[in-house]
Amino acid sequence: MGSSHELTRNGHKDVSLQELSDRLAEFAQLRGWEEYHSPRNLLLALVGEVGELSEIFQWKGEVARGLPNWTSDEKEHLEEELSDVLLYLIQLADVCGLDLGQAALTKIVKNARKYPVTNKTTASTTN
Amino acid sequence: MGSSHELTRNGHKDVSLQELSDRLAEFAQLRGWEEYHSPRNLLLALVGEVGELSEIFQWKGEVARGLPNWTSDEKEHLEEELSDVLLYLIQLADVCGLDLGQAALTKIVKNARKYPVTNKTTASTTN
Amino acid sequence: MGSSHELTRNGHKDVSLQELSDRLAEFAQLRGWEEYHSPRNLLLALVGEVGELSEIFQWKGEVARGLPNWTSDEKEHLEEELSDVLLYLIQLADVCGLDLGQAALTKIVKNARKYPVTNKTTASTTN
Amino acid sequence: MGSSHELTRNGHKDVSLQELSDRLAEFAQLRGWEEYHSPRNLLLALVGEVGELSEIFQWKGEVARGLPNWTSDEKEHLEEELSDVLLYLIQLADVCGLDLGQAALTKIVKNARKYPVTNKTTASTTN
Repeated sequence: MGSSHELTRNGHKDVSLQELSDRLAEFAQLRGWEEYHSPRNLLLALVGEVGELSEIFQWKGEVARGLPNWTSDEKEHLEEELSDVLLYLIQLADVCGLDLGQAALTKIVKNARKYPVTNKTTASTTN
Repeated sequence: MGSSHELTRNGHKDVSLQELSDRLAEFAQLRGWEEYHSPRNLLLALVGEVGELSEIFQWKGEVARGLPNWTSDEKEHLEEELSDVLLYLIQLADVCGLDLGQAALTKIVKNARKYPVTNKTTASTTN
Repeated sequence: MGSSHELTRNGHKDVSLQELSDRLAEFAQLRGWEEYHSPRNLLLALVGEVGELSEIFQWKGEVARGLPNWTSDEKEHLEEELSDVLLYLIQLADVCGLDLGQAALTKIVKNARKYPVTNKTTASTTN
Repeated sequence: MGSSHELTRNGHKDVSLQELSDRLAEFAQLRGWEEYHSPRNLLLALVGEVGELSEIFQWKGEVARGLPNWTSDEKEHLEEELSDVLLYLIQLADVCGLDLGQAALTKIVKNARKYPVTNKTTASTTN
């Protein structure tokens, strides 16, 4: 699977939701954890990780884009918590039998119809 | 971007985190919404969507894998809420300057070291 | 029980957790809702309300104490969402057979031991 | 303040929201923590505690009322996390200048109007 990676414009491998899903399924299967992966168990695990993500930001007041004053340890911790949320989200979609990647593309199209680009908006962003 | 999709074994396009990130950045830029996308604003928006996701499951008692008794409308609603969580998570990682896909792969490797596969586990899953 | 209210220094009735718990129990009993009030159902309902609470704050950037620029409608909406979180929290404690009020007092005492007041802190707050 | 406690029918002191609020204000003032208690900081701290509360329930499958198979340590841990959510919720209401107890009573009245008791429901609960 790894051989099919394309490089994105910033030089990173382009990680797909399907690849993460496959790895997570193998991970759980090898450890006999599948029995614990019911929809509501995974949902509560997701909520738990969102809590850990929030704890990183809780006493910081407003945080600037790019996290200019954060240490590399803090950034790594944040990457881990963001990842934990993503990994439970993927597994939740999987046990529900839903295709998260397609759903996300569909939702972006739906949002684009719900919030059409106005002339005024276009002008202000292209001039 | 769409032309580079590979088909996965289940026949779906293989959606990457980078593709979703690119589309979301364009979406926000066209509507002049970037100014609202600070880290803590996006984090709270994510928490809001996790709340909507939880509301779908809140009065159902235990839910079986595959959602056997759910209507197609309920499944579509669930796909939308799962997507909303994903889309804010991607944007949160982006405004923090972090690579969510790489972070997720790294976290899986870290978890594999933290929870090694035991002989007993292997035996029970391969026999 | 309502007749036993004391007035607090700001002139408000002093609402107790037990009073809210009693009213909620009666509310659910009259509507036949008790069967839905399992611990995990109530927990997910709580998470849903925390999501609605977060949505109020999500696009506002940093918010000043006292909400100086909020309309009375916004404040009323916030009061409702804060209440919803509280009411599910009380019901969750109740179905678990736990005394939330006593638990909260105990936790404050535990926190006081965990975070002792230092001389330096005392000096800076009393001078 | 403690001298005004009434005993409830189960023999516990009847803890009020105002008492908890007063104790929390004193706690924060003595430690010089008030500067950290902005509305969004406290909201994210609340979300963090809801996450810890969810972690207690995440791998348990459906949980029965009264927690019949839980150890006393597990119950104590749950009491602490329920308390942490409550204590941040009270502090959030306080820094917003809102009266959580009154808001909760008002919300129960509003809910009673929104969900009137039907004859059928009354019959099934009173016969």
